[in-house]
Amino acid sequence: MRAEIIATGTELLLGQIVNTNARFLAEKLAEKGIDVYWQTVVGDNPKRLEEAFRLALSRADLVLTSGGLGPTMDDLTKETLAKVLGLPLEPHPGWQEYLEQLFSRPGFKKMPANNRKQAMLPRGAKLITNENGTAPGVWVEKDGKIVVLMPGPPHELEPMFIKHLMPMLPETGSLIMSRVLKVTGLGESLMEELVADLVRTQTNPTIAPLAKQNETHLRISAKAASREECLRLLAATEEKLLARLGENVFARDDETMEEMVAKLLVAKKLTLAAAESCTGGLLAHTLTNVPGSSAYFLLGLVTYSNAAKERLLYIPASLLAKEGAVSEAVAKAMAQNARKLAESTLGVGITGIAGPDGGTPEKPVGLVYIALATPEDMQVKRFNFFGKRENIKERAVHAALNMIRLYLIRQTG
Amino acid sequence: MRAEIIATGTELLLGQIVNTNARFLAEKLAEKGIDVYWQTVVGDNPKRLEEAFRLALSRADLVLTSGGLGPTMDDLTKETLAKVLGLPLEPHPGWQEYLEQLFSRPGFKKMPANNRKQAMLPRGAKLITNENGTAPGVWVEKDGKIVVLMPGPPHELEPMFIKHLMPMLPETGSLIMSRVLKVTGLGESLMEELVADLVRTQTNPTIAPLAKQNETHLRISAKAASREECLRLLAATEEKLLARLGENVFARDDETMEEMVAKLLVAKKLTLAAAESCTGGLLAHTLTNVPGSSAYFLLGLVTYSNAAKERLLYIPASLLAKEGAVSEAVAKAMAQNARKLAESTLGVGITGIAGPDGGTPEKPVGLVYIALATPEDMQVKRFNFFGKRENIKERAVHAALNMIRLYLIRQTG
Repeated sequence: MRAEIIATGTELLLGQIVNTNARFLAEKLAEKGIDVYWQTVVGDNPKRLEEAFRLALSRADLVLTSGGLGPTMDDLTKETLAKVLGLPLEPHPGWQEYLEQLFSRPGFKKMPANNRKQAMLPRGAKLITNENGTAPGVWVEKDGKIVVLMPGPPHELEPMFIKHLMPMLPETGSLIMSRVLKVTGLGESLMEELVADLVRTQTNPTIAPLAKQNETHLRISAKAASREECLRLLAATEEKLLARLGENVFARDDETMEEMVAKLLVAKKLTLAAAESCTGGLLAHTLTNVPGSSAYFLLGLVTYSNAAKERLLYIPASLLAKEGAVSEAVAKAMAQNARKLAESTLGVGITGIAGPDGGTPEKPVGLVYIALATPEDMQVKRFNFFGKRENIKERAVHAALNMIRLYLIRQTG
Repeated sequence: MRAEIIATGTELLLGQIVNTNARFLAEKLAEKGIDVYWQTVVGDNPKRLEEAFRLALSRADLVLTSGGLGPTMDDLTKETLAKVLGLPLEPHPGWQEYLEQLFSRPGFKKMPANNRKQAMLPRGAKLITNENGTAPGVWVEKDGKIVVLMPGPPHELEPMFIKHLMPMLPETGSLIMSRVLKVTGLGESLMEELVADLVRTQTNPTIAPLAKQNETHLRISAKAASREECLRLLAATEEKLLARLGENVFARDDETMEEMVAKLLVAKKLTLAAAESCTGGLLAHTLTNVPGSSAYFLLGLVTYSNAAKERLLYIPASLLAKEGAVSEAVAKAMAQNARKLAESTLGVGITGIAGPDGGTPEKPVGLVYIALATPEDMQVKRFNFFGKRENIKERAVHAALNMIRLYLIRQTG
């Protein structure tokens, strides 16, 4: 089965928004084993929209559109499809009533006459409920082709597609499932060397590397007749990759580094405090993005100035003067004192130069020291990150979290 | 002049990546007054790629592609275009030499034979330099049509387009310029009421509202024959909108709330400290994203636990017990004590329930108190934010920054 995705809307053609609907639909169709050969973007123009429908129907079995189902005159996806298929538009009494009720709630004005347009369907079409908006989806079958119309806002389209449309799509007898392994701590070229032969030679599952700022994602995609067979193929390849990459694989799929750290801290009943300079609170923010983080994240200090480092963190002025605020010794003192102040198991200290100003030949922008104080010892690492201010902050936080993660997984008992 | 954008690549058709190149190119073409009527995505398939080229050449004067210029067998954009236009591919000696030099640097392996493909051009084509990769761009003119081929990675395509291709594009005698006004602190419906008539009736410039999480963007787009005329139109409409929206307009174009706060603090030589509970460091992180923030952001404290609030921020245990950590009184004490500890002009205190757990009927998830301690007085506001944990954190930080901004702009002298 071949599908084509048509997204409509002037905002897309003017480059004001990015076409996330096409990506979302393409991914979900791939999971169902449905091939997408074409994606098209066209404006809210009746002639070109008609041309897009005719072309798509000539080369695909399933045509999916997003956008153009609103109440205004500019919204004409449904009207154009009705014309192309030669079907009259008829009111759908259920949706009309639903809309009227919606607009009769306290605080709402009377339903504008325009909205009635949203309850019109091509004859014989199925209405697809929209729990998040006034425009229902439309499912039409004609001459062996299926056309599905969906509203443009992603928060309407995505739940509608997953909840109502996915189950209606024909089974193709083959489906594609993917799994992503997230790898960190290896240079890109070393990482490539470790897995290049698998990436090159494996065809099912395929392995596709994607370099991100702090991590490389290895996407494993398996094609098979059943979910079980897909899962079996994925697991076998995952095992091969884990054997080569070991503890550098820090998470799978949607899991994040901070979630993995959180899980380990919770499981081991350990606590953490952080003193940040150049990352300016990003480590604390990242840690506290995980629900329940109050159980292990006791304290964060953002001591940007030397005065704050002295007064709040008790870093001796003499040490700051002798070593400089960006130094191994200060990173260690920050980690140790954060740990003591919070009475936590672990303490992290981060000091560095996030730029764009403040660098010197000896201490360039991107130089960051990260220290981890543990009950057993003190670790400290020196990094030279590149990139813009935000990138340096993000890389430093990622590196700090990875130091914590490695400490926790290497801990015996 | 009409343009069509063709993006190639299996990752796009499988929904693994989003088509940011099309958005970028569409936006830049709109600025040049070039209309984009179609965007197409097609896989690395010679037959369909050929079909895409023929179709685009039949309906556009300018065809731009991204992707398929790599060294592998799968990369066939150039080969397909040469076939469609009936032009032979010929080696470009300069680029071939450049590639050979590139691969002869220390640490590089010998240039793979494949890469030679990247130095081939259709006869008569112009080579467009790529400063960020091995695939050059291609500019071909034939039968009154222009075809431009660009590499797929955005960090190669974007600088190539801006630096080399934008100046080569024909002048259209009309261009579109946009300006965005960012508005906050007004409910969406109130905001709509204030500007609805302008949005509805103005045609040049047009005004398009776009609701974001914490703010509404009003995009003003003017079309005119010259840059000067566009700027005049934009300024006139901006003035009308400012007259209605006043201090609720907090920034223009790419300016952020935190940059505006930073500018005001720097101009007035004032300093700031923050004590955060539910926002977990996001306020500090946001403030320190602005280069030079060390001049005014003296201290951030992330006191997630009551113990940290008592020990580090000197919030009396009795107050925490009586009012609860999420209360107006505690927000005020946090703001005041952060200010005193840091010896800063202003102090911010944020306490609330970010969820998803921890809510009660009296203090539901999303309840946030924000206090601002100033030399003159103490302000405190109570908010009920909705959304997920991250949304609540972001909304609270935005509200806190806006309180600071309003204090600073209302300050006389």
